[in-house]
Amino acid sequence: MPSPLRLNPDRFFPADKDTANIARRLFAKVEKLPIVSPHGHTDPAWFANDAPFEDATSLFLWPDHYVLRMLYSQGIGFERMGMAPKGGPATPLASPRQVELTQRAEAASEGGNAETDRRTAWKLFAENYYLFRGTPSRTWLDHAFSTVFGIDVRLEAATADHYYDLIGEALKKPEFRPRALFKRFNIEVLATTEAATDPLLHHQKIQKEWDGRVITTFRPDGVVNHEIDGFAANMARLAEITKENVATWKGYLKALQDRRSYFRKVGRATATDHGHPTPITCDFAPAECQKLLDGALKGTLSPAEAELFRGQMLTEMALMSCDDGMTMQIHPGAFRNHNPQLYAGYGADRGADIPMRVSYVDGLKPLLDKLGNRADLSIILFTLDESNYARELAPLAGHYPCLRLGPPWWFHDSPEGMMRFRRNCTETAGFYNTAGFNDDTRAFLSIPARHDVARRMDCVYLAELVATHRLDEAEAAEVAAALAYHLPKKAYKL
Amino acid sequence: MPSPLRLNPDRFFPADKDTANIARRLFAKVEKLPIVSPHGHTDPAWFANDAPFEDATSLFLWPDHYVLRMLYSQGIGFERMGMAPKGGPATPLASPRQVELTQRAEAASEGGNAETDRRTAWKLFAENYYLFRGTPSRTWLDHAFSTVFGIDVRLEAATADHYYDLIGEALKKPEFRPRALFKRFNIEVLATTEAATDPLLHHQKIQKEWDGRVITTFRPDGVVNHEIDGFAANMARLAEITKENVATWKGYLKALQDRRSYFRKVGRATATDHGHPTPITCDFAPAECQKLLDGALKGTLSPAEAELFRGQMLTEMALMSCDDGMTMQIHPGAFRNHNPQLYAGYGADRGADIPMRVSYVDGLKPLLDKLGNRADLSIILFTLDESNYARELAPLAGHYPCLRLGPPWWFHDSPEGMMRFRRNCTETAGFYNTAGFNDDTRAFLSIPARHDVARRMDCVYLAELVATHRLDEAEAAEVAAALAYHLPKKAYKL
Amino acid sequence: MPSPLRLNPDRFFPADKDTANIARRLFAKVEKLPIVSPHGHTDPAWFANDAPFEDATSLFLWPDHYVLRMLYSQGIGFERMGMAPKGGPATPLASPRQVELTQRAEAASEGGNAETDRRTAWKLFAENYYLFRGTPSRTWLDHAFSTVFGIDVRLEAATADHYYDLIGEALKKPEFRPRALFKRFNIEVLATTEAATDPLLHHQKIQKEWDGRVITTFRPDGVVNHEIDGFAANMARLAEITKENVATWKGYLKALQDRRSYFRKVGRATATDHGHPTPITCDFAPAECQKLLDGALKGTLSPAEAELFRGQMLTEMALMSCDDGMTMQIHPGAFRNHNPQLYAGYGADRGADIPMRVSYVDGLKPLLDKLGNRADLSIILFTLDESNYARELAPLAGHYPCLRLGPPWWFHDSPEGMMRFRRNCTETAGFYNTAGFNDDTRAFLSIPARHDVARRMDCVYLAELVATHRLDEAEAAEVAAALAYHLPKKAYKL
Repeated sequence: MPSPLRLNPDRFFPADKDTANIARRLFAKVEKLPIVSPHGHTDPAWFANDAPFEDATSLFLWPDHYVLRMLYSQGIGFERMGMAPKGGPATPLASPRQVELTQRAEAASEGGNAETDRRTAWKLFAENYYLFRGTPSRTWLDHAFSTVFGIDVRLEAATADHYYDLIGEALKKPEFRPRALFKRFNIEVLATTEAATDPLLHHQKIQKEWDGRVITTFRPDGVVNHEIDGFAANMARLAEITKENVATWKGYLKALQDRRSYFRKVGRATATDHGHPTPITCDFAPAECQKLLDGALKGTLSPAEAELFRGQMLTEMALMSCDDGMTMQIHPGAFRNHNPQLYAGYGADRGADIPMRVSYVDGLKPLLDKLGNRADLSIILFTLDESNYARELAPLAGHYPCLRLGPPWWFHDSPEGMMRFRRNCTETAGFYNTAGFNDDTRAFLSIPARHDVARRMDCVYLAELVATHRLDEAEAAEVAAALAYHLPKKAYKL
Repeated sequence: MPSPLRLNPDRFFPADKDTANIARRLFAKVEKLPIVSPHGHTDPAWFANDAPFEDATSLFLWPDHYVLRMLYSQGIGFERMGMAPKGGPATPLASPRQVELTQRAEAASEGGNAETDRRTAWKLFAENYYLFRGTPSRTWLDHAFSTVFGIDVRLEAATADHYYDLIGEALKKPEFRPRALFKRFNIEVLATTEAATDPLLHHQKIQKEWDGRVITTFRPDGVVNHEIDGFAANMARLAEITKENVATWKGYLKALQDRRSYFRKVGRATATDHGHPTPITCDFAPAECQKLLDGALKGTLSPAEAELFRGQMLTEMALMSCDDGMTMQIHPGAFRNHNPQLYAGYGADRGADIPMRVSYVDGLKPLLDKLGNRADLSIILFTLDESNYARELAPLAGHYPCLRLGPPWWFHDSPEGMMRFRRNCTETAGFYNTAGFNDDTRAFLSIPARHDVARRMDCVYLAELVATHRLDEAEAAEVAAALAYHLPKKAYKL
Repeated sequence: MPSPLRLNPDRFFPADKDTANIARRLFAKVEKLPIVSPHGHTDPAWFANDAPFEDATSLFLWPDHYVLRMLYSQGIGFERMGMAPKGGPATPLASPRQVELTQRAEAASEGGNAETDRRTAWKLFAENYYLFRGTPSRTWLDHAFSTVFGIDVRLEAATADHYYDLIGEALKKPEFRPRALFKRFNIEVLATTEAATDPLLHHQKIQKEWDGRVITTFRPDGVVNHEIDGFAANMARLAEITKENVATWKGYLKALQDRRSYFRKVGRATATDHGHPTPITCDFAPAECQKLLDGALKGTLSPAEAELFRGQMLTEMALMSCDDGMTMQIHPGAFRNHNPQLYAGYGADRGADIPMRVSYVDGLKPLLDKLGNRADLSIILFTLDESNYARELAPLAGHYPCLRLGPPWWFHDSPEGMMRFRRNCTETAGFYNTAGFNDDTRAFLSIPARHDVARRMDCVYLAELVATHRLDEAEAAEVAAALAYHLPKKAYKL
């Protein structure tokens, strides 16, 4: 008999009864607040076209780098998950067993991923679902299985077909299309993220056809990070669409201002996002900037110079934000594509990005020296290096008017990660220098689950303050609503 | 109706009833122990002159960098708090709104901070008091409002005038003068901190007139840190008062020995304190030292050389401590005055110091190689980088006879910070390699609150050990008394 | 009246009753599982010769660097503990009091450590046993005193003789000999650690005479780390016993392959172990490798080159593991013998090793680029720098098929350390990318205590997940058994 799947209404609340009662009361006041999702990576095409999702495997397994990485870490190659390597034959991985499996998968996938392949991949996932015990992926998936599809048995080998069939059937129904789910999820606003050169066609279609508030975010990494694949092509495209001479420092900045303006007007963007390896910022004179730009365009920047170029561009983006009012997000510290074989075979965003140690106190100084005292500038800082919470980020955000702290990010978007964030940041930065929750996800069906966990964990933290007589319950309720709803709206000007 | 203000007798004790009962029993045994405050920054003039404090704003708002930084971080400029910029017009900050406010504040403050200005600043503070939810400042302030002034409503817009009037009236009474509060707070000994060249006139007056035990601490930063404003003048003054030739390495050391001796005899000092950017120490031959001193006096030291000079001086200070028995405190890792505009406008200690990542295991090695095995030397280490607790500080203090760990410092002097300290340090360093609590404050009225929190949190940690059968309650009671009273007296030879 | 010593059956379980009940039920299912000890430093001679242990002092005090370091940190010199300095007179330590004590100890120890000396040392230990409050040493020692010797009073000055006599008497009995204790402890397999050039005579004797499964581990540090005392002699010995020309890169690698094979066949080894200062790895061409080897043999490698040589050898060891299937353990980040005076006087492993900050994400990249995708390779990573748990280690192990996380190590092998490990690693790496518990001890009698603590703490963590509705209790029970028994057997191929 399969194990039951049932979301306990008190999930994540502490075992202590008194504290749990406080948490439950606080949560009751924020549970039904609309979802504000000011940063994420869902595909705007979903909402533009409102086409049905295909099946369990392509919905839950293939696009979720959290899921892929865990299965991969246990020796389950992507081929076995039914995924074809990009651009032809997979780079032969070193293990003979994997090479063999690759070859088998390639043979099997002639003609694309047939239904059989997808069902087989789903079964493999189901058999290995126990690997996710104790992880947020388990929480998010169970939440979606239960609340979106009404499934009441746990995913395991014996229930794999039941899941696959039930989900497949459901997805054919109109109420499981993207726009219907958006409404059902009670999303007030959802931000996607697009490259600076994106024409925002999907967003235009969405606005014309539908009242769901899906907005874009301006992400210029592709035209400020000389080390990204395709930088030269991106710059050519930037010149083309803005009619600016991007080979001059002035023209290049003008082109970026143009695009920011386009994103605001056409994509309803209120924020920019910057995914840099480090939080280093610079403040060079224009002649120096021109030299860096020259090197970027010629492809001659050393890694250190590429870092300076990116750092200068963070400061330029902050300056532009002072003019156009866009909220600026800095997401530093990921070593992208740490596994070159996997990158060659399957590309980016497959779970092979690893956090690095970073330093904000030195890195941000040039930008802060120039603009740190501007109360009309809003920069939201994120980190993958939690040692910075109490040491650097909370002290910085607890002083500089322009800074706010983004929520626990990526690997730390989890119950323990959220508690570490509050425990390490609150005493120095308070609650009101934080920016509420981001789900930051490309897994659309996980959005309600992620906000549910965030609201619950914030209520747990607040309940502890109340239970230990550090805060009155009425105050805690105000803070809970601020964290769940009001602070993100304010921080992102939504 | 205003919210009540009431200090719950069980505040900070855990929600779990059994653990709270143990904590309560342990705390009952240490709650009334006299306060030993071996390190802090209260003004000895208060106790020398025993003049009344003026009003709520100048007592609670202006001197408290924790309060200033939080308000500032939310875009509230210092002018709006009624503070005039130092030496004339404020450095124009970047925000047009702030410049305007500055100008308005300057116009308003002609003739100093009138009563109206102070009351207005207090109201602004009261309106924004919600920003401090979840911070230790809230705890310290509420404790002082409640226990010192008997206020029973929470600070908010509606109660601002009530607070301002009530505090103002109280401060006129003799029992609210500094010496009376010192006795009321049950302070056994209070250490202030003075620069090496300070004549200690206030301390002399205190000793002549009063039996309160206020002692000084020898802080030579101004004459060992070549990068501090006024170094040259400090050195000239050092030469003048000691009649030593501080341009020679020998004369310079002799001058410092002289001042240490003076601090011990005239200021009853038992300790020195060293606020260096890093914990780097050096052990150079005299000729090398002379070269560093030459560079310092000529102002030609590079930043790296200035670091070596400071590092050498830590070792020299440890050597002198071996001779004169003074306990040595090292407080490293603050990036002072991180905000240059604010520093230009309002000077130091305004909440713009940010912690940095530091390394003790390498940095202290030269000093430890020379003196680490001396059981008659006592060096108390502090950190702003908590990643060092379990990795470096507890292992070092759990081995070297000369080392003890100071309590959680500055940003970490908070309930969560104290728990992190005990959780990360105790298992490796034990309790008896720690040095009890320091309040390290310039906010005199917060001293009882800070010791109250420290004693409570230590009892909470001990109660957990008892509740989980790791320690007997009688042992825990012994440890609680050691942490609250006996260990600081021993570590500081008081 | 002496305090009672009694191990509470619920020790370490949380105060919350519901969570404690879950933990108790989970623990009941794993408490009696056999001990699998895949990594440690017990002396194989004990099991080869089965000679009785001598007395309390030589069993519990002298060999335990955790105990030595704590006593030493409080100014108790090794001489006072009855330990003679190595090779004659002690290096005079700086403290006059210690020098005097050294001289007294030397005089006293003429003719070795007489019974009187040992009893005196034991009394000193007993008097200072309170220093261990809150430390894992206290837990381990009390567990051994209680369960192995049935002592029911706490160690303190008044009970020192009782302990010394009772333990001394017991050790004379056959049931307290090493082999008998091994069986009584229910040890299924115990791995010791031997240098690459060790002839494994004890292991051969064990296999011939006895059915206890004591196996060796291949530790080549002495022939890959050019900075270790005796490197040249070790290399000469390696050449001698393998008949290979270790001066050529090929011959050197062949010699190591030979020894690995010998360790597997003669010592039943299934794993290698590598105690490097950092986790740096390299992947040089053979000509470069030969140059590094030349430098190592000539003794001309700079510290940076020595690091590269060690880094290259980690990659070579991983390659050999791909061939021979040995599990590879990397234990980086200890600054060995941080106290040069103590090292000169008393040698290594006296409690003077201090953790350092390390970086895995860069350090391991060359090895991972080459072999990271091999699911048939098993590398177990350890750390002394806990800031790496959530930032680097869990993300790496949650992606690379070859990586597993070793348990909390050394200073972190403690209740708090274990909780930090699970709290920081589980959400990203899951449970199944961890390798179960290692006791890693040379203190044979502490082995049951250490596994007891590890099993209890894992049950506490799991109980929290169950109590907060993140995991079903049946699943938690499966995980508890995996962590206690199945995962270490799998990770070490036992």
